[in-house]
Amino acid sequence: MDNLQKCQANYTALTPLTFLMRAAACYANRTSVIHEGTRFTWAQTYERCRRLAFSLRALNIARNDVVSVLAPNIPAMYEMHFAVPMAGAVLNTINTRLDAKNIATILRHSEAKVFFVDYEYVSKAKEALRLLMDDNNNNNLKKGVPKPTNQPHSTTFSLPLVIVIDDINTPTRIRLGELEYEQMVHHGNPNYFPEGIQDEWTPIALNYTSGTTSEPKGVVYSHRGAYLSTLSLILGWEMGSEPVYLWTLPMFHCNGWTFTWGVAARGGTNVCLRTTAARDIYRNIVVHNVTHMCCAPIVFNIILEAKQSERIDIKVINGKRKSPVEILTGGAPPPASLLEQIESLGFHVTHAYGLTEATGPALVCEWKKEWNMLPKKEQAQLKARQGVSVLTMADVDVKNLETMESVARDGRTMGEIVLKGSGIMMGYFKDHKASSKAFGKNGDWFKTGDVGVIHPDGYLEIKDRSKDVIISGGENISSVEVESLLYKHPRVLEAAVVAMPHPRWGETPCAFVSLRKNNNNSSSSKIDDVTEAEIIAYCRKNLPHFMVPKVVKFMEELPKTSTGKIQKFELRVMAKVFVQTKNNTTTVNKKSCQVSQNSIVGGYNNEQVLAASRL
Amino acid sequence: MDNLQKCQANYTALTPLTFLMRAAACYANRTSVIHEGTRFTWAQTYERCRRLAFSLRALNIARNDVVSVLAPNIPAMYEMHFAVPMAGAVLNTINTRLDAKNIATILRHSEAKVFFVDYEYVSKAKEALRLLMDDNNNNNLKKGVPKPTNQPHSTTFSLPLVIVIDDINTPTRIRLGELEYEQMVHHGNPNYFPEGIQDEWTPIALNYTSGTTSEPKGVVYSHRGAYLSTLSLILGWEMGSEPVYLWTLPMFHCNGWTFTWGVAARGGTNVCLRTTAARDIYRNIVVHNVTHMCCAPIVFNIILEAKQSERIDIKVINGKRKSPVEILTGGAPPPASLLEQIESLGFHVTHAYGLTEATGPALVCEWKKEWNMLPKKEQAQLKARQGVSVLTMADVDVKNLETMESVARDGRTMGEIVLKGSGIMMGYFKDHKASSKAFGKNGDWFKTGDVGVIHPDGYLEIKDRSKDVIISGGENISSVEVESLLYKHPRVLEAAVVAMPHPRWGETPCAFVSLRKNNNNSSSSKIDDVTEAEIIAYCRKNLPHFMVPKVVKFMEELPKTSTGKIQKFELRVMAKVFVQTKNNTTTVNKKSCQVSQNSIVGGYNNEQVLAASRL
Repeated sequence: MDNLQKCQANYTALTPLTFLMRAAACYANRTSVIHEGTRFTWAQTYERCRRLAFSLRALNIARNDVVSVLAPNIPAMYEMHFAVPMAGAVLNTINTRLDAKNIATILRHSEAKVFFVDYEYVSKAKEALRLLMDDNNNNNLKKGVPKPTNQPHSTTFSLPLVIVIDDINTPTRIRLGELEYEQMVHHGNPNYFPEGIQDEWTPIALNYTSGTTSEPKGVVYSHRGAYLSTLSLILGWEMGSEPVYLWTLPMFHCNGWTFTWGVAARGGTNVCLRTTAARDIYRNIVVHNVTHMCCAPIVFNIILEAKQSERIDIKVINGKRKSPVEILTGGAPPPASLLEQIESLGFHVTHAYGLTEATGPALVCEWKKEWNMLPKKEQAQLKARQGVSVLTMADVDVKNLETMESVARDGRTMGEIVLKGSGIMMGYFKDHKASSKAFGKNGDWFKTGDVGVIHPDGYLEIKDRSKDVIISGGENISSVEVESLLYKHPRVLEAAVVAMPHPRWGETPCAFVSLRKNNNNSSSSKIDDVTEAEIIAYCRKNLPHFMVPKVVKFMEELPKTSTGKIQKFELRVMAKVFVQTKNNTTTVNKKSCQVSQNSIVGGYNNEQVLAASRL
Repeated sequence: MDNLQKCQANYTALTPLTFLMRAAACYANRTSVIHEGTRFTWAQTYERCRRLAFSLRALNIARNDVVSVLAPNIPAMYEMHFAVPMAGAVLNTINTRLDAKNIATILRHSEAKVFFVDYEYVSKAKEALRLLMDDNNNNNLKKGVPKPTNQPHSTTFSLPLVIVIDDINTPTRIRLGELEYEQMVHHGNPNYFPEGIQDEWTPIALNYTSGTTSEPKGVVYSHRGAYLSTLSLILGWEMGSEPVYLWTLPMFHCNGWTFTWGVAARGGTNVCLRTTAARDIYRNIVVHNVTHMCCAPIVFNIILEAKQSERIDIKVINGKRKSPVEILTGGAPPPASLLEQIESLGFHVTHAYGLTEATGPALVCEWKKEWNMLPKKEQAQLKARQGVSVLTMADVDVKNLETMESVARDGRTMGEIVLKGSGIMMGYFKDHKASSKAFGKNGDWFKTGDVGVIHPDGYLEIKDRSKDVIISGGENISSVEVESLLYKHPRVLEAAVVAMPHPRWGETPCAFVSLRKNNNNSSSSKIDDVTEAEIIAYCRKNLPHFMVPKVVKFMEELPKTSTGKIQKFELRVMAKVFVQTKNNTTTVNKKSCQVSQNSIVGGYNNEQVLAASRL
């Protein structure tokens, strides 16, 4: 039978682009994208993408060229997920919360040929381009090359061509150069049908990890990987047909955990959001009858802390009882009380685990019907586990860090979580060393760097990042386990536990904590009456003694990366300083995080994402 | 980015075998298979499959060897869908309703190395083997080779090794040779873990089409195609997690429309059925709380015509209201009244279209919520359409038979339905000519041979098989359209319309009809008072005149293939005879179909599958 030949009819490249083609054919008149006053159908979205692809080709964009985008969750951002790969190029969505320096680094590393910039980010983009030019100039001066002129596109350096995305509802006329997104779409040829993808092992997207400790790494997805991961997520979340999907997760996070492509696959409706303000979330849910949304746990707080005037009852729409809005979340498992609060408002939460390298969620905590009979608290504990592999993941395991043998499925023995499947990245762009390290010398498993256990029922639970494990007197302490307890304390808002050097035990846990404001809701930011001793006593009551933090430091806010992850490496430095200086004051000054005040525009200035989550 | 290398971690072959591995890891203790008193968990099913794969290897089964099976929907049949490809072999499930001659033809053509036979089919299998031996002897005598001895396995001819599958609940001790299925499982090594599939373009299954007009053709599926089609069907039907799946569709039909693999993918429970008697269907639905089933339309009749004593109310189980049982059906679109009846009992019907070459359903009539507002009759009309492509089908189109241009999406212009996607077969086994014809000289589309239209909403509707179109005075008449009207007549049970030669118009429609018994339920089989003139008048009232059958013949039962498809080619022969002999009696003798009386054991002795369905 080996002589049966592949042909176009029976062997077509797997690519998310077919989802859009199919949506345009099968759901032509169904609403594809809504953004305030703007609405498109799937037929229109397909045409707009083809037009844009045509215009990109007209700019000499060639196969595997990188097209970078700095934009919030607007229709253009959605369309580029199809239009850019249609043109044969690779989509690079940039975290809008990065500063100009980081953006410049990404543009240089990715060798972006085109740089789309939402009008709100023009000044940041200008600054990033200036940094790039300065760099180029310095390099050229060193090499004795004449200083380039002020014309960015006439330099001998390949600065990207900039295209501004103006507001589609109320144009601002803000520009950076001559090109504008809607004009590109408008001037594209509506009869252009790009040739299909021939090889599914072709890059479709380039996503830079936030890099808590090192330079950002460029994670490359193939068309095949993106396609299969998209199917997995729809299946794992049981997202049926005609979903109405609210964009509370940035599309620049692993391409919106693949739902950029997934909503097209399901013939659903994308409800775009420029910001994740509570008012906008409630209003859009009710007006458009939203069925699904993904988000970081911080969005739960935004929803719960909404003012009365911002809230709308989402359980009843047009006098009819509505099914709960399905939320898929990653990162810090929401504690039982938070879950109960959020679900009482008319949401239903599913918990996932993943990382950029696995194209978003790799495990989903699939609910078992038998769990419905358990007390709420137990349900929350079960839901907080990271769960089982998504369907197109070929294999997931937890292996002993040294022998690389599978650990016992006892819910206690820790090991490194390893993954295998076509949804895993092609590798890191221009970083062979990092790719080799991630895949190991046999290339047989992708090593996540996360430490977990497998429960007897086959469900996996993360215990820590490899590098965050604290080894005290030879015992492994999961920092996440200690943090989880701290999060259960009614006054704790944020918690992070790191290793602190110790002369006898090698390392001991050191906790950093920020507190909730007092119940009287006073806006005072002064640290109140909770003491280090009280927190330690609380831990002693609930943890084995060797796991109890020896030191607890209070902060107004913990230091975070631009994606809202707590920067443990900074805390580790601080913990070392405490030891050296015997500094025992229980309050440290607010450590400002890298997030600029402006970045609130993009939402999430306060994410409670544990280090365990790298989505 | 082209230098990023595939490795085992990021490029794993797509194969349904991963569904079983994953089910064993994630749903180890969940019930996988139920058959009367027998129950297995997913951990057990995985172990049993590995043991069986080991035993097959021990019999020197090598890569791409064919393993044939003649069995109803029993646990062994289910397990072989994994165990046989695990051993590197290709699974060939044989239609249990075929006669010994057809079975012998398949065994010879497939060069089966092993032949598993359910105890109930031992005599038929014996007869098939005898025919094979006779043939061999004759061939050898012709070639001057000495006549072989009576020992089937010691002949120089490669007769397959026979393994009987005894009843797992109440063993019969019936044997054909020495080997028995449970012993094979028992003696297999439980610690055997077969190496994985390296190349997803490797055959997994060989399914012979029923061949209404020619020798059966062997359709080969790849691991990749089976995998992707399985995902499509779960998605298209929106089958959630923990389904309880009742096996009312034979697993030998396109591997149970991929749900053999799909139930494992969803961590569901397979409820096996040896027969599709009404009593067994009702009882199993209630006892096991069945959520899903697939079936040919004949099963609707079995359900509706059940005696009072066989019926159980399936809408309430243990005092609790139960969601409807989801039914996926192919073939003849159920008329509105039948739909209403079946759904009132507690079922919900989805309609699909497919063919063996497309690994089962290629289109599913995805329901649109807006249709819920329409009158029931209109809903039935919409539901009767074949719908939209399943998600992993890369493209579906309807093309002009001559120009191969896409037809207008007007719901009227007919053309040939063509398909493209990785779910399409690898080709026909040892039949390059047929493969080339199916894929065309460019290999760009699989040509279904079915004629259809595309409605303005993108939904496809089948009008006929190419060869069944009647061309009368230059007008194309869809035989299916006339048949659909006939089926709506309250007294018509079965209907088939074929071309009858006509001196003036070239062809005219000739209808063959069998009638429902009178309402008084008399068991008399004599044709009653409905006349040809009445049927013609009914057609005239509801059809354009050129489409009205000139002749209507009544039969007790229409001739059918072993899979229950009406044999139009026989009717065509009869229609020609009518013209030649001017035979105008309105009743013809019952034409016995190929189904033997024994085959009722396997269910469906009376399928109303229109020629339009080739699932």
